[in-house]
Amino acid sequence: MTRPFVFEKPLGMRDTLPLLYETKKKIRRKMEAVVQSWGYQFIATPTLEYYDTVGSASATLDQQLFKLMDQQGKTLVLRPDMTSPIARVAGSSLKQEPYPLRLAYDANVFRAQQHEGGRPAEFEQVGIELIGDGTTSADGEVIALMIEMLKKAGVGQFQVAIGHIGFIHSVFVSILGNEERANKLRRFLYEKNYVGYRQHVKELSLSSIDKHRLLELLKLRGGKESIERAYELLPGTEGERFINELSNLYAILESYGAADTLKIDLTLVSHMNYYTGIVFESYAENLGVPISNGGRYDELLAKFDRPAQATGFGIRLDRLVEAIDQREEPSAAITGIIFSPERRQEAIELAREKREEGKMVVLQDLNGVQDVDAMSEQFADVIYCIGKNGRGGKS
Amino acid sequence: MTRPFVFEKPLGMRDTLPLLYETKKKIRRKMEAVVQSWGYQFIATPTLEYYDTVGSASATLDQQLFKLMDQQGKTLVLRPDMTSPIARVAGSSLKQEPYPLRLAYDANVFRAQQHEGGRPAEFEQVGIELIGDGTTSADGEVIALMIEMLKKAGVGQFQVAIGHIGFIHSVFVSILGNEERANKLRRFLYEKNYVGYRQHVKELSLSSIDKHRLLELLKLRGGKESIERAYELLPGTEGERFINELSNLYAILESYGAADTLKIDLTLVSHMNYYTGIVFESYAENLGVPISNGGRYDELLAKFDRPAQATGFGIRLDRLVEAIDQREEPSAAITGIIFSPERRQEAIELAREKREEGKMVVLQDLNGVQDVDAMSEQFADVIYCIGKNGRGGKS
Repeated sequence: MTRPFVFEKPLGMRDTLPLLYETKKKIRRKMEAVVQSWGYQFIATPTLEYYDTVGSASATLDQQLFKLMDQQGKTLVLRPDMTSPIARVAGSSLKQEPYPLRLAYDANVFRAQQHEGGRPAEFEQVGIELIGDGTTSADGEVIALMIEMLKKAGVGQFQVAIGHIGFIHSVFVSILGNEERANKLRRFLYEKNYVGYRQHVKELSLSSIDKHRLLELLKLRGGKESIERAYELLPGTEGERFINELSNLYAILESYGAADTLKIDLTLVSHMNYYTGIVFESYAENLGVPISNGGRYDELLAKFDRPAQATGFGIRLDRLVEAIDQREEPSAAITGIIFSPERRQEAIELAREKREEGKMVVLQDLNGVQDVDAMSEQFADVIYCIGKNGRGGKS
Repeated sequence: MTRPFVFEKPLGMRDTLPLLYETKKKIRRKMEAVVQSWGYQFIATPTLEYYDTVGSASATLDQQLFKLMDQQGKTLVLRPDMTSPIARVAGSSLKQEPYPLRLAYDANVFRAQQHEGGRPAEFEQVGIELIGDGTTSADGEVIALMIEMLKKAGVGQFQVAIGHIGFIHSVFVSILGNEERANKLRRFLYEKNYVGYRQHVKELSLSSIDKHRLLELLKLRGGKESIERAYELLPGTEGERFINELSNLYAILESYGAADTLKIDLTLVSHMNYYTGIVFESYAENLGVPISNGGRYDELLAKFDRPAQATGFGIRLDRLVEAIDQREEPSAAITGIIFSPERRQEAIELAREKREEGKMVVLQDLNGVQDVDAMSEQFADVIYCIGKNGRGGKS
């Protein structure tokens, strides 16, 4: 082992130093207060889960899972998200609690990275799950809650893009005839590769009317009027139901006074096969990646023997901090009391007094410091209790 | 995969349901406030570290480590403690910060369990490290801080046992002559197997005076007078220095007004080879295992290229909660507003008003509930906004 190696961390792993730690704490607490005022209850689940249960039910690609073997030879994963663990809890420990369940979490999740590209392999998510309620009111509630959290956290300008997986799926299947061809096209949207999408549509052997419909889908992004335009692409009554849902959702969010941040985006495919209905993502003005995302997942709970419609979202704390970009001030408020042993008693009492007044006080034996000047510089205020004299002031 | 298996968690892994979650949060925040008022700064480190760096420097037995391979073929561990990761940070990102460093953490750590015996494989620790200060004032500060945290957390009756690894080591080496024989005897103390210790001493080929001294060591447990008695077992000037340290520490803790919880225990060996000086453990009246433990570790920092004397401790939150045994009340304070869609707007406004007053409010679409009675029972207070009538009261 070469010496520099002792400082290394695994790929994508980060330390959080005091300044960022305090910033995160402050933002986290603001969001927690909102979540609790909306009647959601926080739970925690283990970092490790069985691959065969939570691991395979999660929305994460297999190559992004951190896997290990336990001593019984079973494969474990570091939880890649919190939705599947919460579904497990809803189906077991909370089985007696009636639906709808309103649960919240604040947890680190893990995604293995193939190479060091600035993406964290461990990041903190604050999120909620509303399980057992299939109404559009539930979709509206979670989106309104997310918006309230982002506002309270201090994100100035942000937009929430809203789409509907059911609608996209209906359009594709009605035009393309089968799932396989639909999935191929869906992948372009998932990757936000609109050029590839257009190219692929042109190469399909379809009527020019159908090609036109597929290309028109890309234009269903913008304000409320995009919902009206979506009716023109309707593949049938199922599609109509989905657009009605979206229209209803928009009205609900207007009731919440939250419509000013909304953007309709019917090309939104947040995941290849996890979500089943309304999906959404939020973007801050100054950041290219979503701060949060979520949607309806009506099929997951059945895997944990307690079928239920459900919706929820997760907010990434690292991205939120970037979006807010307002770090805590360095802890300038610390008072240092530097004492020599003969005046320890006096120094201890002085520290206690000041701490009881709510001040932050470092109490330091002079003999434990190599460089008193360097140490003193860290403090807003230094008191020296040294030698036989009375209390000294800042030098 | 049989169906019941979907609910299983890996060995020693636990879910934290809302009641316990809130209890832990409350206790954690009380302790954090104390830690910050003493001028310690919180940092966070990754869950995964390299085995060759933090893993091997930690105080944890190899078979208790959760290991996995990363995609580069390097062995990773789930952090078994926070002391080594913090030493790594002190030697790298915080290299420019002058010693002494006062750092704090609140983190989950991991210990693989061989069988399900009620021991958690993942548990939360709140702790601090004081790095770069070799004075007994530093030992006194961290013990006084720990005592203050336990008191503020709400532990009624507890004792802090204090020992000195250096003293034990001196006694053993001076009588037994070599490390190997000293370690054998030390293991009995580490396992708190006093019967085995006595038996082993009897079988040693030593003078009866030396045997007597080894047996007398077991009696050095009790009040302040045990320190005086320790002088009688003195193996030389080094041993005298250690006892002077202990005596000085006791006086310092008296200055802090913390001596009422102290118990001298010169048989205390918290770890086989990690600590180098004063060690301590705290016990609550109603719990057989330590709530917290710590001590001086003057050799660890050198492994991260920034040699320093250091001391610190960790408090186990799970044991602390057990010791306090005062769970939060169920969230009886939640108000439920159950609405039918035609009165959604009114319900949303009512919920907002109440949330702004600081109340916790669940807003529920009637169509999203299967069993309205079961749901209503969860709330302290239910308001029905249903049908064309005015606001309804609790049914």
